[in-house]
Formats: sequence, C-alpha cells, structure tokens
Amino acid sequence: MSQYLSYAIQLAQMVEGQTGINPPVGAVVVKDGRIIGLGAHLKQGDKHAEVQALDMAQSAAKDATIYISLEPCTHYGSTPPCVNKIIDSGLAKVVYAVKDTTLPSEGDEILMQAGIEVEHRPIPEAEALYEDFFQAKRQSIPQVTVKVSCSLDGKQATDEGQSQWITNQAVKQDVFQLRHQHDAVLTGRGTIEADNPQYTTRFENGKDPIRVILSRSGEIDFELDMFKQSQPIWIYTENEQLTTDLGHVTVIHLETCQVETILKDLYERGVGRLLVEAGPRVTSEFLHHHSFNELILYYAPKLIGGSGQHQFYQTTDVLNLSNIPELEIVDTTLLEQNIKLQLRKK
Amino acid sequence: MSQYLSYAIQLAQMVEGQTGINPPVGAVVVKDGRIIGLGAHLKQGDKHAEVQALDMAQSAAKDATIYISLEPCTHYGSTPPCVNKIIDSGLAKVVYAVKDTTLPSEGDEILMQAGIEVEHRPIPEAEALYEDFFQAKRQSIPQVTVKVSCSLDGKQATDEGQSQWITNQAVKQDVFQLRHQHDAVLTGRGTIEADNPQYTTRFENGKDPIRVILSRSGEIDFELDMFKQSQPIWIYTENEQLTTDLGHVTVIHLETCQVETILKDLYERGVGRLLVEAGPRVTSEFLHHHSFNELILYYAPKLIGGSGQHQFYQTTDVLNLSNIPELEIVDTTLLEQNIKLQLRKK
Repeated sequence: MSQYLSYAIQLAQMVEGQTGINPPVGAVVVKDGRIIGLGAHLKQGDKHAEVQALDMAQSAAKDATIYISLEPCTHYGSTPPCVNKIIDSGLAKVVYAVKDTTLPSEGDEILMQAGIEVEHRPIPEAEALYEDFFQAKRQSIPQVTVKVSCSLDGKQATDEGQSQWITNQAVKQDVFQLRHQHDAVLTGRGTIEADNPQYTTRFENGKDPIRVILSRSGEIDFELDMFKQSQPIWIYTENEQLTTDLGHVTVIHLETCQVETILKDLYERGVGRLLVEAGPRVTSEFLHHHSFNELILYYAPKLIGGSGQHQFYQTTDVLNLSNIPELEIVDTTLLEQNIKLQLRKK
Repeated sequence: MSQYLSYAIQLAQMVEGQTGINPPVGAVVVKDGRIIGLGAHLKQGDKHAEVQALDMAQSAAKDATIYISLEPCTHYGSTPPCVNKIIDSGLAKVVYAVKDTTLPSEGDEILMQAGIEVEHRPIPEAEALYEDFFQAKRQSIPQVTVKVSCSLDGKQATDEGQSQWITNQAVKQDVFQLRHQHDAVLTGRGTIEADNPQYTTRFENGKDPIRVILSRSGEIDFELDMFKQSQPIWIYTENEQLTTDLGHVTVIHLETCQVETILKDLYERGVGRLLVEAGPRVTSEFLHHHSFNELILYYAPKLIGGSGQHQFYQTTDVLNLSNIPELEIVDTTLLEQNIKLQLRKK
C-alpha cells in the first residue's frame, strides 16, 4: 500500500473514539512527492478530514492527490459534501481505502465527471477500522464493547460480593484507555451500589465517558460518589416516578428497558461507541442477546471458587453444546501478570 | 509516554525528509480529552508544526495542551517564534519530547513567565529522530546516509565492471524510499558513466532528489540519460573551464573538492539530508573520513570474487586491526532474498 494511505489510516486511528456517531477519518494531501496537508475528523458536526487537510494545503492543493481512509461523502449533513470541496480545490486524484457502504455511493462518478481520477484501494487494516461502524450505523445502534475483569474461573466476585482489585494496575490503565475511546459507559444499579465506582478516565487529558445506569425498578442511591461529579449521567428506568433535581443527571423512561431499545435510544442521543462495564446480570444480557461487537476479557491468575454467584456469564436457558456461540480471538496480551483477551462475534 | 506525545512523533516521522535543513516536527493540540488540532512542519520556510495545529484548533486552543515532538522555537526565522503563537493562543500547557540543543533554550522561561505550564518529557524514540539533525546543524553540514549494494564478499561490481542488478527488486523499492527521504543524492563521475543511472524515485508520488555529481577533473558526458530530465543536477568540480547551457544543471567550482567542503556547500544550498549512492572511490572517501551518520548495506547472496577492483571500501593507508573503526548495527531486515543492514557510527 502507499505510505500516504497508511498515514491517512494512522490519523484516523488517532481520533478513534472522539467522533461520536461519525466515523474516524484521516486525510493526507500530497503534491510533487511531499505532504502539503494533513487532517482528521475531530468531532461530530465539525469539519471532515478532507476539509481539514485541504484547508492546510490551501491553493497548493491544485493538481495534488488526496489519500483518505474512507470514501469522501456526497451529502449535506452538518457540513457540505466533501466531494464539492475536493472539486473546488482542483485536486487531480482521490485515493481512498474503504468504500462507505452506508451511503449512496455516487461519489466516484461525481468526481470523475469533474475530471478527477478516483481510486478505491482496499486495505484490510482500514476495513477492520470501519466494519463495526458500518454495521452499527445500519442498525442505528452504537458499537458495543463488553469488558469483563474476572478470575481464571470466570468470576467477577466471590459469593460474598468481594470484587475490588481482582485485576492489577496495568489492567486499570488499559481500562482507562478503553473508557477514553468510548462515548459512554453502561452499568447496572447493582454494580454502582456494590462498588461505588466513578467510571472516569484517570490519565493525562483522558476523556471521561457519559455514565449510563440501567435501573429498571428506579431504585437509585443518589448519595453515591459518581453523582458528586459533574460529568453527565443518564439513567434508564421503567419507573415513571423516578425524577431528580441534579442538573447533570437525565432520567430516561422507557416502557421496557430492553437492551435493543436502550441501544437505539443511546444512538439517537449521539452515542456511537458504548462500553459495557457491569456485573454478571447486565453483562450476561448483552452477551446472551449478541448485542456486542467486541468482548474484552481481563483474567487475573486467581481462582475464586465458591458457588459462582458472580460468574460473569449466566443464563436461564441451557443450550446444547453444539449450539453455543463461539467467538473469534483477535488478540491476546500479557499486562504484567494479567491476561487481556480481545474477542469478536464470529 | 502519553499517547498524544506519541502521535506528535508519528506526525514528525510522516514528514521526515521533506523539511530540508529544518527538523521534522509534529504537534497535537488536546482539550477535554479530545484532539482539537493536528499539525506538522511541511516544508522549510513554511509554518511550523505548532502553528499548523493551532490554526486547526482556532479559538478552541484556549486553555488546551499542546504536545510537540520538539521544543518550540523562540526566534524569528522565516516565520515568527512559535512561543509567541503559543502565548497568543492562550494554551495552558506545553509538553515536548526533545530539547533543541542547537538553539538558545530560553523558551521554557518565556512560556512560564506568560503563565503557561511547560514540561520536557524525554522520549528515546524522539531523541533518535533528532540526534543526527542536531549534530548536522551544529556542524552546518547535511545528515549523510551512505548506501551500498554489494555481494557477500563486499564487491559492487566484477573486475570487468559488470554491476547492474546485483541486488533484487525489493532492494530497488527500498532504495526508492531512501531517495524520497533525502534532499539530494551524490555520486561520482565514474558511476554515471558506467551505469547511466537516473537516481529517480519510482513510486507513487515519490519525491526525486537533487542529483549531485562529483567530477574533480570536470569530465562530464552531457549525453547521459540523467541530463535529459528536468530535475536539478549540481556538478562539483575543480575545473574552472567546465560550463553548460543546460538550464537545470548548475556547475559549482571549488578550489579543492574535499568531502567536508562539499558538505558545507550543500548545506548552505539547503540540503539537510544527503544520500551517497556511488562507486568504491567516492563511497570509500565518505566512509574513510567518517563523513556519514548512517551506512545502509544491501547484500545479495552472491559471491563475485576476482581481484576485488570494485570492493566498496578501499583505502591507501592500512590501519592496525585494533584501530579500525567499528560500527553499531541498528537493524537487519530480509528483503526477499537480500539482506538490509542499517549501521551507525559508534
């Protein structure tokens, strides 16, 4: 692949997790063998990557080539179509790595009719970057990552509910990174009462996710630490009586708080990437309904035993062994003495 | 290290080789956990990386943090001092990876007096990026890479001068990349007559280097292929009679064409990175005078034998084995069936 296309993909990866329900995109403008403009889509509603890069290149963009991680858009959204900007800037050629399968794809023709050479050059690395985005956008739900920290025997806590610090400091840092890369983190009422967690991103210039709590019954202890911070909290409940005076807390009433319904509502509110960090009940709901793109398991080299009240995956129905879902291992990493396993739905 | 500082270094690496006698620099502006501006120094004389990134961030830069691969400048060069722009933009904090040891370093104080927090956070990867740049700038000579393609027994050609295609296609591609990353390529008169080479960068949007020919005697065959291209050619000679009508060819007369004198002159003409791609005579001159930062050896798995008239390293004086220079191996790569060895002066 061209090094410039690879740079465009690197730029896209730098902004992954900060573009809401928009895709992370990077762009590089090149003329006479040198980079004359660099850009990335920095925020939903903000300029697209192509526009940032062309603004940097200014009039030098005439007769240049632009390399983009994703096909340029042809529609009026919160910004005008990128193909217009490309045509106006007098570019000679457009090379992009991934075709946007969620949009009408007449972009190639529009550009070619304007006399611009267009090349779709597929790159597996970039396809992987957008695969989940396309699927989520088509279903109008966020991309979902389920995160579980547990013992080797699959338990998030002892039978007595002791759970804190099963995994180590390196895992904690890695989880901060995960939170940074997601717009929102979802958990259940039980977990916030048991652990009193903050769900913040404690590293330099980390982005705190919106905190989403699922409490069907509407029971909520507003004295918990997380309510003392100003970061937005959204509570999904079936209890119409639940209200609050706290300015940063939004109560969302749904007739039935099903996973699918919550996901659709989150997407409408601009959540493009959701991290599920919850106890066995909520975790199992997402896994059982296949409502996830990625599962990240952190195993501490410990054996908890007991009756397994807090095993991370529990269901009421029992499937035949030949029918149980199998996942695909994407990667495994050693985080000091803990193991990180990244898996995807097959 | 912070991921943002690592992004700034990635941006610097993207523009390595296109900034002439200026350093490649990258910058990332961050606020509330999201990137709000990206920049790189694209060309000598053009805006610095900090300015590009701050221009992208615009007024959002107020109270933000900027991560830069290199300390921001405090002097008026072809552009105003970056510290002024940083102060004017209202940034709260500056984090940089490498201190610029070639400039007066009162930048920290200027920024701190303006109420801006400053942090120098050393990163080995970035230090390596600038080490040769600093040394070259202090001596006012280009960074020099000597490239040699040879047989396992160290010969660039047979005794009869047969030399073409000793190494393979993968090496050729790698050499194109090398040429792209250097401002100029230097060779001797003998090599251009023997091989009739072009010294171009034959890949998509590759940057052709300026071609520099050393011909002390002033003998030059202007019918060779390289003179038919429009890319600039500079000829260093001691022969005051040598002239040409070719518009893209510059003849530079020096009283004595010593390596050191040529390097100083090249630097004055804006060459920040020089690639030496020459025969045994010129190659040996650069190696013998330690006038190089990096030596790149491509070995084909062949044995040429003969008397070794074209061994790539030949000297008239013979050193005691305990005095011969030893190099440091930086990396070794297999390019299909050829070996690439990257070495540095110790």
